[in-house]
Amino acid sequence: MPSEFDLIQRYFKWPVTNTLLGIGDDAAVIAPNTEMELAISTDCLVAGQHFSENTDPYKLGYKSLAVNLSDMAAMGAVPRWATLSLTLPHSVIDHHESWLGEFSKGFHALAQEYQVALIGGDTASGPLNISVHIIGEVKKGRWLRRSGAQPGDDIWVSGCLGDAALALKHQMHEIALTDDEVAYCLPALDTPTARVALGQRLIDWAHSAIDISDGLMADLGHILSCSARSATIELQEVPGSAVMKRYLPSPLAVECLMTGGDDYELCFTASPKNRSAIRQIEQELQVPLTIIGEIKQQKMQKSDLIVYDSKGEKIVLEKKGYDHFAA
Amino acid sequence: MPSEFDLIQRYFKWPVTNTLLGIGDDAAVIAPNTEMELAISTDCLVAGQHFSENTDPYKLGYKSLAVNLSDMAAMGAVPRWATLSLTLPHSVIDHHESWLGEFSKGFHALAQEYQVALIGGDTASGPLNISVHIIGEVKKGRWLRRSGAQPGDDIWVSGCLGDAALALKHQMHEIALTDDEVAYCLPALDTPTARVALGQRLIDWAHSAIDISDGLMADLGHILSCSARSATIELQEVPGSAVMKRYLPSPLAVECLMTGGDDYELCFTASPKNRSAIRQIEQELQVPLTIIGEIKQQKMQKSDLIVYDSKGEKIVLEKKGYDHFAA
Repeated sequence: MPSEFDLIQRYFKWPVTNTLLGIGDDAAVIAPNTEMELAISTDCLVAGQHFSENTDPYKLGYKSLAVNLSDMAAMGAVPRWATLSLTLPHSVIDHHESWLGEFSKGFHALAQEYQVALIGGDTASGPLNISVHIIGEVKKGRWLRRSGAQPGDDIWVSGCLGDAALALKHQMHEIALTDDEVAYCLPALDTPTARVALGQRLIDWAHSAIDISDGLMADLGHILSCSARSATIELQEVPGSAVMKRYLPSPLAVECLMTGGDDYELCFTASPKNRSAIRQIEQELQVPLTIIGEIKQQKMQKSDLIVYDSKGEKIVLEKKGYDHFAA
Repeated sequence: MPSEFDLIQRYFKWPVTNTLLGIGDDAAVIAPNTEMELAISTDCLVAGQHFSENTDPYKLGYKSLAVNLSDMAAMGAVPRWATLSLTLPHSVIDHHESWLGEFSKGFHALAQEYQVALIGGDTASGPLNISVHIIGEVKKGRWLRRSGAQPGDDIWVSGCLGDAALALKHQMHEIALTDDEVAYCLPALDTPTARVALGQRLIDWAHSAIDISDGLMADLGHILSCSARSATIELQEVPGSAVMKRYLPSPLAVECLMTGGDDYELCFTASPKNRSAIRQIEQELQVPLTIIGEIKQQKMQKSDLIVYDSKGEKIVLEKKGYDHFAA
């Protein structure tokens, strides 16, 4: 059996930039740009909770970094450094070439694309658990936060929502997608794209932002509670893909669209005065951006978030989104 | 069942210093001192691997931070910020008041003592897994590393080695300590003291350093391989506690002393010219420091590390220390 040290040397020690001391000592050492502040986040993926044991390790490596990049996107930060804590079952350690080789390739592919340096980590044996910690740089005082939503703000989302949830429902046999539909939706679940460039561009224009990891209702709900505001959204404005549109307005499709997690799109709020600037960013980055509702002044009586259907009637959604303990 | 959000608010949101944005957004934001560089490390504790499921949660919270502080100590860094990824089984979530309440108290007690701010984290449900990420500040270019050992350097260790291993052997019924001996040795295993102040003081005097988490033989071995040196050590010089001395020179006690993990003392090398300066630090910090051997110029034929007994004869030690995959 290979030692922990051997595996790290073999699979996780790549040439890194922006790093004074990388993997192989008691800690890594970095020298952040003194003009910047640091955004720091951590996200873990747990077998049986966030993915099944037999998930393609390449996709798992990719996604474990992608979900952390998404947190950087939601802050408007430039992701720079990451560490990786891996707990591996013996079935993986015994087949490390196939599993760790693929996992590290997936992680590395995305790390290279975003020039994120893997500077440290820890490995242990036990039930499969992947914890990534990420550090990004932000201009001083210029970060996107959840708490800045203002009355009258447009509520925007990037991309399309719910495809990852559709793919998951298909895997759980709750819906039967066609092969073409699966091929379209599965990348949203397996290899999501974090909106890193978009987040950085929004710093000058958005009042608040969050990434949609737990579903639109839950994550917009965080913006509302952090900002002490309420909101209305128009269901028919919430952007769904061509596949999603085939299944709307079935309750299951609406649930995927509004409460499905794992999308990693950004939800942000901005003054209507900034619409043309935001449309310009949409054009430049080629990322679809859609206004889905409006931030309201006061807390509403029964709910902070009211959803209207195409007839202008209020909709009640049963599941407010993904909670890591309720799943 | 409480939501993830509720639990974080309740157990992990303490007032923090040195932090621009703490728990509750997509990422935390910090503004490091621009005169300093950052040391970054991560260490995880896994149920069944590093501790048993029924370990006192207070001690687990304490230790999960202590082992990370120890990495900062080994770099000569001042620990400043930490994040915590917790994967919790439903048995814990269902009894969160007793378990998480105690865990967070243990973590918080040590965080307060060292003025480390808990700035973020993630929780999920699954087999118990605790991953802590720590960030410390070091003076520019002035960190302790594993790779600097020089020929002729004294090899030093702090404190006493092997008490944690003795306590573990007792728990595993491989040795029968008296109640008094257990009471003496158990804190080394459950609530170890990271040598944070010592590490910072050694920056001016040591050529290399590591914390002894995997056992003296293994960790000194890392210094030797990183520095491309060899070494000799004198078994009778390796400091053991009064309890340890009662069991020496039995093979099991020698194994605990030389290869037992979880001690979190520092092993460092320094020029003999610096002995009086280091003795001065020993006096000021009231941490016993002991010279146990010497760094040699060249790689030796059979082994990089030779241990001599009190008769000057070479000893062969079977286990080189703790490997996270072999255990």
